[in-house]
Amino acid sequence: MTTDHSNTARLEAFSDGVFAIAITLLVFNLKVPELPKPTEVTLRAALWQQWPAYAGFLSSFLTILIIWLNHHYLLKYIRRADRPFMFANGFLLLIVTFIPFPTSLLSAYILTPAAGTGAFVFATTYLLLALAFNLLWYVAQRRGILHPDTHRQVNFKGVRRGYLTGPLCYGAAVGLAPFWPIGSVVICVAMAVFFAVLSYEA
Amino acid sequence: MTTDHSNTARLEAFSDGVFAIAITLLVFNLKVPELPKPTEVTLRAALWQQWPAYAGFLSSFLTILIIWLNHHYLLKYIRRADRPFMFANGFLLLIVTFIPFPTSLLSAYILTPAAGTGAFVFATTYLLLALAFNLLWYVAQRRGILHPDTHRQVNFKGVRRGYLTGPLCYGAAVGLAPFWPIGSVVICVAMAVFFAVLSYEA
Amino acid sequence: MTTDHSNTARLEAFSDGVFAIAITLLVFNLKVPELPKPTEVTLRAALWQQWPAYAGFLSSFLTILIIWLNHHYLLKYIRRADRPFMFANGFLLLIVTFIPFPTSLLSAYILTPAAGTGAFVFATTYLLLALAFNLLWYVAQRRGILHPDTHRQVNFKGVRRGYLTGPLCYGAAVGLAPFWPIGSVVICVAMAVFFAVLSYEA
Amino acid sequence: MTTDHSNTARLEAFSDGVFAIAITLLVFNLKVPELPKPTEVTLRAALWQQWPAYAGFLSSFLTILIIWLNHHYLLKYIRRADRPFMFANGFLLLIVTFIPFPTSLLSAYILTPAAGTGAFVFATTYLLLALAFNLLWYVAQRRGILHPDTHRQVNFKGVRRGYLTGPLCYGAAVGLAPFWPIGSVVICVAMAVFFAVLSYEA
Repeated sequence: MTTDHSNTARLEAFSDGVFAIAITLLVFNLKVPELPKPTEVTLRAALWQQWPAYAGFLSSFLTILIIWLNHHYLLKYIRRADRPFMFANGFLLLIVTFIPFPTSLLSAYILTPAAGTGAFVFATTYLLLALAFNLLWYVAQRRGILHPDTHRQVNFKGVRRGYLTGPLCYGAAVGLAPFWPIGSVVICVAMAVFFAVLSYEA
Repeated sequence: MTTDHSNTARLEAFSDGVFAIAITLLVFNLKVPELPKPTEVTLRAALWQQWPAYAGFLSSFLTILIIWLNHHYLLKYIRRADRPFMFANGFLLLIVTFIPFPTSLLSAYILTPAAGTGAFVFATTYLLLALAFNLLWYVAQRRGILHPDTHRQVNFKGVRRGYLTGPLCYGAAVGLAPFWPIGSVVICVAMAVFFAVLSYEA
Repeated sequence: MTTDHSNTARLEAFSDGVFAIAITLLVFNLKVPELPKPTEVTLRAALWQQWPAYAGFLSSFLTILIIWLNHHYLLKYIRRADRPFMFANGFLLLIVTFIPFPTSLLSAYILTPAAGTGAFVFATTYLLLALAFNLLWYVAQRRGILHPDTHRQVNFKGVRRGYLTGPLCYGAAVGLAPFWPIGSVVICVAMAVFFAVLSYEA
Repeated sequence: MTTDHSNTARLEAFSDGVFAIAITLLVFNLKVPELPKPTEVTLRAALWQQWPAYAGFLSSFLTILIIWLNHHYLLKYIRRADRPFMFANGFLLLIVTFIPFPTSLLSAYILTPAAGTGAFVFATTYLLLALAFNLLWYVAQRRGILHPDTHRQVNFKGVRRGYLTGPLCYGAAVGLAPFWPIGSVVICVAMAVFFAVLSYEA
């Protein structure tokens, strides 16, 4: 039992480390404007101009925070982490560590004619994140490593419905990206807020 | 009970991770001077010239350290972390991860004519930090998740007075920033030292 | 006993921190393309063009993840961490923190005439990683700090054979690098996948 | 008692986080050479040329690792972390997070006529590190927060002698820096190796 507990504990510690670092590194998305002859007016303008970077920072922060909250919620019900679960968890972490890249990319190109490509990579990453999280629950159920009393406490149908909504909406955002980049990004951000509200009430 | 403990423990671990990373990333605020033909004299001059960067590093280090100490102090009295508390904590972490940006911004512009904007963003971030920390205490009290014996051990009136001082002073620093940038920054740094002394004696 | 446990616990926490940070920092290997006049076509082309960076990201992520998994597996059997074990662990962490450098180097030069040098540094790092991990097991056995029942649970011959395969193959990759850089890299990536499958089945 | 334990545990977790991040960030000291038209010969030459960066990486890695080991050793004897101890610990962490800067600075200037300034900043940082660690022991003893049986297990005279050697030698390195930069750096690196051997035998 001690071994099993330390097993889950270390998976949690490692995952929390990755979540904490990925969420803290998002700030590097925000660049201090370089103005050779700055005035209050030009610096303020330069700071306003990079609003997509702030929006990306907020959106990715919220998304990683919610993924962490849900990860936390799921792991409470895991009795012990076996290898398949650890690999599914590794896949989730892969996507989480990747998030700063599409966030930077979107911020750099959302106001340019190449916005579609930026939105496509951004939405695809969020779709992969949703799929990775679904996979983790699926593996946990398949491997029978959930606590026996999970069924009483967790409304699996509700979870399944909630987890289905994610991939479907993010899938729509991916399809929409080349045609309406802003719309695609709005869906991704709205999903983050939606999941935040959902998990707030849970 | 174990679940509750692990619940708080993981919130602590995640928060500590974010605090530790944010505080360690501040060093990237310090740039090695690039001198094509360096001499002892020019390198020394170049290192002195970026004193605002060292001041920003020290000030933000002290501020994050104190926030961590107080966070630590607050969490000792939390019985279990519910969702509202976790979101309030998430808001605090959002501001903490953001700190390197205004620190860099201020360091880059404090000696230029755009100092007011830099000081304004810097002081506003510190104000938000103080508000986020107040919110966290408020949520903890409102949700009734404090240990029953907290009232005996914590002087709530003193805490409330201390926590009121923060937003008020930082608010003054924000208002002062456009007119007297240096004064605004001095208030922020003085508050960090003041809170350090306060928490040293607590 | 408590002291011993906290001893191993803190070594785990520190190591997990280093693993988590090193794995999360790999994303800085991925640069947002800088295009002065971007279009959907040029941005997409620029993103495709840096496929070696994605491959490096994936390969190093998988490698660090597996090292973490195996580290985790080994530490389950450690009764207490003495100084020699801590230094062997420190050597492993040295190589782990170094990984982002050869990954960046390889990504930058694999498509240039200097590919051989990039592949040589990359394969050498992986070889050192394998040697460091072997050293850690060796020290653990030599120092007699493994749990008494480790021998019943761990197939040492299998472990030894598995651990011998690593240095041999990575050694071959190092020798091959100057002559056939791509082949050298393929061996390194194949080893990561091979160890993943191996540890999945363990 | 539980509170006290969690108190020390969280200080350890936070400190370990800072140590782990600072040690992992050292890799950013190593830059991938930018060669417009690379060949095997020019890339190899460019990689050799930045040997001071590798030396700095190794030296700072070893130093942080040993500080971590000794911190770990000290905290085993701490019954509970009070505010003064936490501030002394905060001062130590301040210097630890600062280390990547003098390491980069030294690497950039050791082969230039400005080597003296680089060595001076480097040696001064190491001196501060040694002083911060001495302060931590001193505060722990002064505040009476060491375990009662510490005196039986720790040879305080030996510790004091060991801890005195650090500041003295680093002080000599600081004084030597403007006149003989290489000699100053050699002392710092030799001290790291010396402390490693010392703590290996402890």
